Amino acid sequence: MLYSKNNRTLGVKVAINFALIGSGRIGKLHAENLMHHVPNAYLKAIYDPNLDEEWASSLKVDLLTKNLDEILNNQNIDAVIISAPSSMHIELIEIFAKAKKHIFCEKPIGFEPHKIRKVTNITKNENLIFQVGFNRRYDANFIKIKKAVSEKIIGDAQIIRITDRDPEAPSLEYVAKSGGIFMDFSIHDFDMARFVSSSEAVEIYCAGNTLIEPKLKEYNDIDTAISTLKMSNGALCVIDNSRQAVYGYDQRLEVFGSKGSIEAKNNTQTNTVLRNESGFHSEKPYYFFLERYKDAYIKEIYEFAKCIVHNKQPCAGGEDAAKAVCIAQAAKQSLLENKPIKIVY
Amino acid sequence: MLYSKNNRTLGVKVAINFALIGSGRIGKLHAENLMHHVPNAYLKAIYDPNLDEEWASSLKVDLLTKNLDEILNNQNIDAVIISAPSSMHIELIEIFAKAKKHIFCEKPIGFEPHKIRKVTNITKNENLIFQVGFNRRYDANFIKIKKAVSEKIIGDAQIIRITDRDPEAPSLEYVAKSGGIFMDFSIHDFDMARFVSSSEAVEIYCAGNTLIEPKLKEYNDIDTAISTLKMSNGALCVIDNSRQAVYGYDQRLEVFGSKGSIEAKNNTQTNTVLRNESGFHSEKPYYFFLERYKDAYIKEIYEFAKCIVHNKQPCAGGEDAAKAVCIAQAAKQSLLENKPIKIVY
Amino acid sequence: MLYSKNNRTLGVKVAINFALIGSGRIGKLHAENLMHHVPNAYLKAIYDPNLDEEWASSLKVDLLTKNLDEILNNQNIDAVIISAPSSMHIELIEIFAKAKKHIFCEKPIGFEPHKIRKVTNITKNENLIFQVGFNRRYDANFIKIKKAVSEKIIGDAQIIRITDRDPEAPSLEYVAKSGGIFMDFSIHDFDMARFVSSSEAVEIYCAGNTLIEPKLKEYNDIDTAISTLKMSNGALCVIDNSRQAVYGYDQRLEVFGSKGSIEAKNNTQTNTVLRNESGFHSEKPYYFFLERYKDAYIKEIYEFAKCIVHNKQPCAGGEDAAKAVCIAQAAKQSLLENKPIKIVY
Amino acid sequence: MLYSKNNRTLGVKVAINFALIGSGRIGKLHAENLMHHVPNAYLKAIYDPNLDEEWASSLKVDLLTKNLDEILNNQNIDAVIISAPSSMHIELIEIFAKAKKHIFCEKPIGFEPHKIRKVTNITKNENLIFQVGFNRRYDANFIKIKKAVSEKIIGDAQIIRITDRDPEAPSLEYVAKSGGIFMDFSIHDFDMARFVSSSEAVEIYCAGNTLIEPKLKEYNDIDTAISTLKMSNGALCVIDNSRQAVYGYDQRLEVFGSKGSIEAKNNTQTNTVLRNESGFHSEKPYYFFLERYKDAYIKEIYEFAKCIVHNKQPCAGGEDAAKAVCIAQAAKQSLLENKPIKIVY
Repeated sequence: MLYSKNNRTLGVKVAINFALIGSGRIGKLHAENLMHHVPNAYLKAIYDPNLDEEWASSLKVDLLTKNLDEILNNQNIDAVIISAPSSMHIELIEIFAKAKKHIFCEKPIGFEPHKIRKVTNITKNENLIFQVGFNRRYDANFIKIKKAVSEKIIGDAQIIRITDRDPEAPSLEYVAKSGGIFMDFSIHDFDMARFVSSSEAVEIYCAGNTLIEPKLKEYNDIDTAISTLKMSNGALCVIDNSRQAVYGYDQRLEVFGSKGSIEAKNNTQTNTVLRNESGFHSEKPYYFFLERYKDAYIKEIYEFAKCIVHNKQPCAGGEDAAKAVCIAQAAKQSLLENKPIKIVY
Repeated sequence: MLYSKNNRTLGVKVAINFALIGSGRIGKLHAENLMHHVPNAYLKAIYDPNLDEEWASSLKVDLLTKNLDEILNNQNIDAVIISAPSSMHIELIEIFAKAKKHIFCEKPIGFEPHKIRKVTNITKNENLIFQVGFNRRYDANFIKIKKAVSEKIIGDAQIIRITDRDPEAPSLEYVAKSGGIFMDFSIHDFDMARFVSSSEAVEIYCAGNTLIEPKLKEYNDIDTAISTLKMSNGALCVIDNSRQAVYGYDQRLEVFGSKGSIEAKNNTQTNTVLRNESGFHSEKPYYFFLERYKDAYIKEIYEFAKCIVHNKQPCAGGEDAAKAVCIAQAAKQSLLENKPIKIVY
Repeated sequence: MLYSKNNRTLGVKVAINFALIGSGRIGKLHAENLMHHVPNAYLKAIYDPNLDEEWASSLKVDLLTKNLDEILNNQNIDAVIISAPSSMHIELIEIFAKAKKHIFCEKPIGFEPHKIRKVTNITKNENLIFQVGFNRRYDANFIKIKKAVSEKIIGDAQIIRITDRDPEAPSLEYVAKSGGIFMDFSIHDFDMARFVSSSEAVEIYCAGNTLIEPKLKEYNDIDTAISTLKMSNGALCVIDNSRQAVYGYDQRLEVFGSKGSIEAKNNTQTNTVLRNESGFHSEKPYYFFLERYKDAYIKEIYEFAKCIVHNKQPCAGGEDAAKAVCIAQAAKQSLLENKPIKIVY
Repeated sequence: MLYSKNNRTLGVKVAINFALIGSGRIGKLHAENLMHHVPNAYLKAIYDPNLDEEWASSLKVDLLTKNLDEILNNQNIDAVIISAPSSMHIELIEIFAKAKKHIFCEKPIGFEPHKIRKVTNITKNENLIFQVGFNRRYDANFIKIKKAVSEKIIGDAQIIRITDRDPEAPSLEYVAKSGGIFMDFSIHDFDMARFVSSSEAVEIYCAGNTLIEPKLKEYNDIDTAISTLKMSNGALCVIDNSRQAVYGYDQRLEVFGSKGSIEAKNNTQTNTVLRNESGFHSEKPYYFFLERYKDAYIKEIYEFAKCIVHNKQPCAGGEDAAKAVCIAQAAKQSLLENKPIKIVY
């Protein structure tokens, strides 16, 4: 169930004041979720060099600024939500950590594990809460599966099977800067494999092809991939990725174990089925990731606030971001060399 | 998809100021949905003789009062949401209509059609928007079905099949004042039959029994009922009701027609399935109506605001409330006399 | 699972010799099922005034005859399968019972309960096995439901919900001689209500209309019906019938009780689902009743042989046929008089 | 739909006389399917050194023999069904081919491609029909998927995803002689990948582990495997295998393409769902492969007879058997060397 701003508290009645750093599509979403779904959370400031004035004014936020220092030096701001361009994430984390603000940062933090770890360490040294936007960790389906695995309801996990397919291939412009399918897209699945199994990936083999957009070859990228991971607990994980599933955003996960299996099917807008001469017809999955993970986006910000109040680190932290990048790096190498690669963390 | 307070408008940028009349469980829900999901809507006042102070103060509403006149005479209030005890609904509608406030009133409006029509007429004469809280008319599943029926996707509707079962029988205290199963519970289904078929019920036959709580007999009430309605377009409608489905709140609807059928299955919290030695196990429907119809409650308040802005009557009006009561009256009579009864509107 | 002629026995190794009386579509089916699926069963004779010679010769049956006496007087024949025209059933049962042959008779036995009971009694007096072709009682889905009800897995049955819809309306010629929708079509559902609940129907109310073929009015018949039955154990049963479901033969059954419900969905030819831009598409139910109940037809003949070997009456006997007719008669009267009718057995 | 011995012909009315070579579990099944489901097919002889006399006598077959020559020299025998021990298959095919009998041979033909090809060539030179018992090629689900792929209903195939899990791990005695998981178990999936895609596997990578039975290590075998195949048409295929799925025999297949995907779910004994306080419960897949592929076993023998009548090679021939073995050999090598292996045919 979703979170209600008013009839629940975070357990302790402490007001938390937030600033939003970057108000693009995801930034706006985080701001609104914070305002409407997190008890005792107040959005006090927005930093954005290209602010959407109309949107911002509707929020009645005290401080709208193009000067980062106004937020860094604002003693009233407890925490920041960083949804600026990815290339700025590392630097922003560092300066906000030094300014002693709790930090929620959209993924990707960065593409180099040592840099992610460096800024993560600064947040630790400052005793700050640091959360990374791995939104899928807050999805009800996947949480239920993680719980079933942890509680050994399916016994010992043996096979993890992830299907992750986008509804539409990104533009070549996007691809050029994306870091490639593993860093940009499969990284969610690499994180999910770790999350759901509470285990580490030790080796990866990737097979791939350009079946949707042949021009991807010019970018040394692919659009269709099968990745096999050997996990430290002995389980095998297999991920199938496609950049274009014409029927929508396909998000399935199965964990198979010694006492059974648990699988998440796709979510749909309604549960109706039409029956006619040509068959039985039910709905496609949500097409858009913001719709599919709408509740997960609310829940991750809610959890961030809760972690601040209770001084607890969130389940998606800097080290998780670093490790996912390590796996993605090994994935790229595996594809290049066409052999399984040991993952170095 | 849910409604976002900030990134959508109602088409015209006009602020609407609301007052909440009665802040029990449903009143609180409406207030929060209004605040967090309806653009340009402002909750300016709450009237409640027994106000939950803590909750109310968290809302930062300008006016909290135990004096109805303060709201009636407040020129700033455009619209009221009436969620006071049912017995006061008729009277409250009348005085707020005379005070020229747009009105959203929780159901039931009343148990006497002529009284419902009298106050409905007052709202009409004052050119006010008047909406009744038939929340199910705003559910995505049922809207999709109504649309399929209206657009003749299933051809001409021939059979309407409604399953409506509560998870838990109400207390005998509740039952004593409820007006009986038809007026209190099946009335939603009577309305749904009209809504989904865009047709009127002309005759009803009800069979019933006390299979869950034998003491209901003392109240001349039943807990299990099958109602058959003949609709004005020739279709037949059948409703099965139970006061206690141990597996949850069972809300299914099928419309069968000359070119096919469309059916809504239950909604569940996750789409996971557990497979083990004892079978394949998936989730129960939502247990609680507030969870099941969470989005519908948001949508109905959103639509109320939209109707005010666009000066359009909502799809659930006073006449719908009156007609549903007429059907429920005939249902009671049918059960009593054990014969089909022509419905008098 | 289906029955294998060779790797199973009926428990006792006794050869049983059968004669087939009438070899139309269903007669042929019974003959082949007997030959290929029932251990120790031998088809020794076929009586048919209009025999399909080519088909019959392929069976290598000893005796093909147009003279009924040759079968009546044949001491080698233990049992007969009557699949002659319905109008001859009563007479044929009587003479074969007097000739001391065990009898399987296709439904309908007849349309007059006293005649059905008269011939049933003759079979009893002769200590013969007498089975009626209520094929649905041998369907795996419905057997599983009956078992769940009997074993109180769903607690006490409260609501029985039957959906029975034919894929295609019969010709007016057929309708004219059919006895009407209740006697010809719904009679299966009346029997199913009794079978699955192990309870008797005490009262029935039927609402109906001609929504598919208006000319049915000339035959005092309908094509769409909702029947509500009050059962002797207090449960309510509702049946929705249509003569034409364009998506196929719709055969669903739900029994809802104090501890849960159990429902049978339709069977399909494959379990594939196609996903594309227009949605998720799965298969329609079987279109043809012989396909849908293929296994049930095998099982009923298998059970008939087993009953003979073990000298046990089958679960579908003459009294079941008589009672289903009594319900159908009451249904006709209810429709005519538009009121609930007590069922007289 | 199943095949009926009597009301269908194979298109041409020619009696075909069969001999059964080996009458273990599968041999018996083929014999009975032939007798009861294949028109104009006659089982005339059985060869088995350890004949089950009771079973055989029930079949009323003319010739029961322990002398192979009696069958080889019998001019009346058109075709043989070889279901002798696997180690004898190659030799038996050779001598029956030289005796000019059409041959259906159970899998595995052998573990060495060149030997399979040698005997296949003999059958070709003699203009004989030669079919291999890849039963899954005759399953309705998988045929429907192959058809959808061939007809480009899902566009160009991009990802093939096979789940094949046995309900119970085999005994170590069995494993010792099995040839290992790839040769004994996954070989069905390797064949399915080729069948469903009408494309060749060019490279394979296998990851595996012993998660169910650690003693398998002593046999250089595994019980859990993920295989990734690159197909000649560019598609990627991934197979997940487990020797023990406690919930039953898990047989799923999905082909994903440029215009959608098609997936086969498991088959179950009934389509019932039980709803109670602990959730919604539906049936497990069939547990036993003979139940799951019951219809496929009938169909493959039916097709064999049809191919003989129409002088057409079946869809599962010797070269298919050889190629599946080539893939299995590469799979073993991949596991051993932990790298992708080019498949040599």
